[in-house]
Amino acid sequence: MKAREQFRVPDKFTLDDADAARQPLGDGSKAGDKECTDDVLERINDLQTMLYAQRKHKVLLVLQGMDTSGKDGAVRSLYSKISPVGLRTAAFKAPTELEAGYDYLWRVHRHVPAKGEMVVFNRSHYEEVLITRVLKQIDGKECRRRYAQIRDFERMLAETGTTIVKVMLHISKSEQRERLQARIDNPKKQWKFDQSDIDQRKQWRAFQRAYEEAILATDADHAPWYIVPADSKPHRDLAIARLLLETLESLKLRWPAPDASLATLKIR
Amino acid sequence: MKAREQFRVPDKFTLDDADAARQPLGDGSKAGDKECTDDVLERINDLQTMLYAQRKHKVLLVLQGMDTSGKDGAVRSLYSKISPVGLRTAAFKAPTELEAGYDYLWRVHRHVPAKGEMVVFNRSHYEEVLITRVLKQIDGKECRRRYAQIRDFERMLAETGTTIVKVMLHISKSEQRERLQARIDNPKKQWKFDQSDIDQRKQWRAFQRAYEEAILATDADHAPWYIVPADSKPHRDLAIARLLLETLESLKLRWPAPDASLATLKIR
Repeated sequence: MKAREQFRVPDKFTLDDADAARQPLGDGSKAGDKECTDDVLERINDLQTMLYAQRKHKVLLVLQGMDTSGKDGAVRSLYSKISPVGLRTAAFKAPTELEAGYDYLWRVHRHVPAKGEMVVFNRSHYEEVLITRVLKQIDGKECRRRYAQIRDFERMLAETGTTIVKVMLHISKSEQRERLQARIDNPKKQWKFDQSDIDQRKQWRAFQRAYEEAILATDADHAPWYIVPADSKPHRDLAIARLLLETLESLKLRWPAPDASLATLKIR
Repeated sequence: MKAREQFRVPDKFTLDDADAARQPLGDGSKAGDKECTDDVLERINDLQTMLYAQRKHKVLLVLQGMDTSGKDGAVRSLYSKISPVGLRTAAFKAPTELEAGYDYLWRVHRHVPAKGEMVVFNRSHYEEVLITRVLKQIDGKECRRRYAQIRDFERMLAETGTTIVKVMLHISKSEQRERLQARIDNPKKQWKFDQSDIDQRKQWRAFQRAYEEAILATDADHAPWYIVPADSKPHRDLAIARLLLETLESLKLRWPAPDASLATLKIR
């Protein structure tokens, strides 16, 4: 079964029912998943080089997920095999004062892929209907207005040649506990820990509801959402790689036509 | 011998005398160089995480070199092991119309590292004293004015906390012939080939002289130039990794002090 069918968000769902430990791909072993991921990434790298050479399509991968869900790790996995020449990452943290002076799509729009590029958003404009909603910085009415704005924005991107893949890395609450505890207990990881991680964990249910609502409100065939189970790191990487590969394969990429005048050229 | 001593540009030199096939590091085998590079990159990754956690230092790696000298490959090697969270790349191609409307340092300045970041420049402001000089878009007087501007700019960066490492990837003219020919002959690489590659190859000597002059004019202890022999790709990657590692080691990085209040914290 294609990963794009396996993980595509259904019309109705709750994250509580989605098993974050599910491992439908691979053979269930970490080593097996890692090996599969490497193979898939090598194929992505070939296709991505073609994407870059052809300079026709644009690919945008949006990564969202709770704290510790593995967004950074997922990005790292991609770079382990894909050439950074055509792969770019934009990480969106809390908006700076400058950024907050603009509309919330402004800073995001600046980083969308150009022709031939593949761009990964590590967090995205979705933060503006997630954390802002849970912290009640915006009310329900404003949130729905933003869903519509986001739908419009993404439709425009799709209509102008951008292939969009949106992934929510779904971890269980117990897995998050272990990962946060590891951050606290490991002196080399403690710098990653922030008091807000605990505050947000306390609002776990509210965040899950905000994710469900935002995902359902913005899922579209031209901007599909995938719920990737992320309790297993190797399987998470495999799932994302497979989603990307299937997406690139659907583009029917080709090498630019060879230049006949070069056929006999000898460099001196 | 430290790589920083091995490759640091001497007070007087010509590129003709610098052996592009020299392999002073490693055991002379490709597999050995690859393995060494992986080890060094793993250590860089640890230090880079510390750099990121500490948010005190900024590191800038400038990569320059003739066409096919391996700038893209060198960047790729870094990403194979170093987390992209704190590693950023800025590639500078021919200036766009927008960019050309500003002074030549404008677009470069926007991409310098912030605290905790390591940034790689794939080409840089040095193009503005290299190709522009060879194509006679600027005369000698303007070129010398720019050397001084670049010195001032880099001194400012260094004085405000940026550790600068400048690398020229030095390939031989015959190695470039083979690599250009491979681009032409391989349908998967032909898209990389551009007629200007040949035009520039015809001006090989002029480019080498422009490099020598620019390097000598802008080498400084706070912004050192290293000439890395680049006919061997694995050795090139090893040399760059070693230069970076030694540079990071010299910063005496430390993990941020642990937060005592977290010592007994248990996540629920």
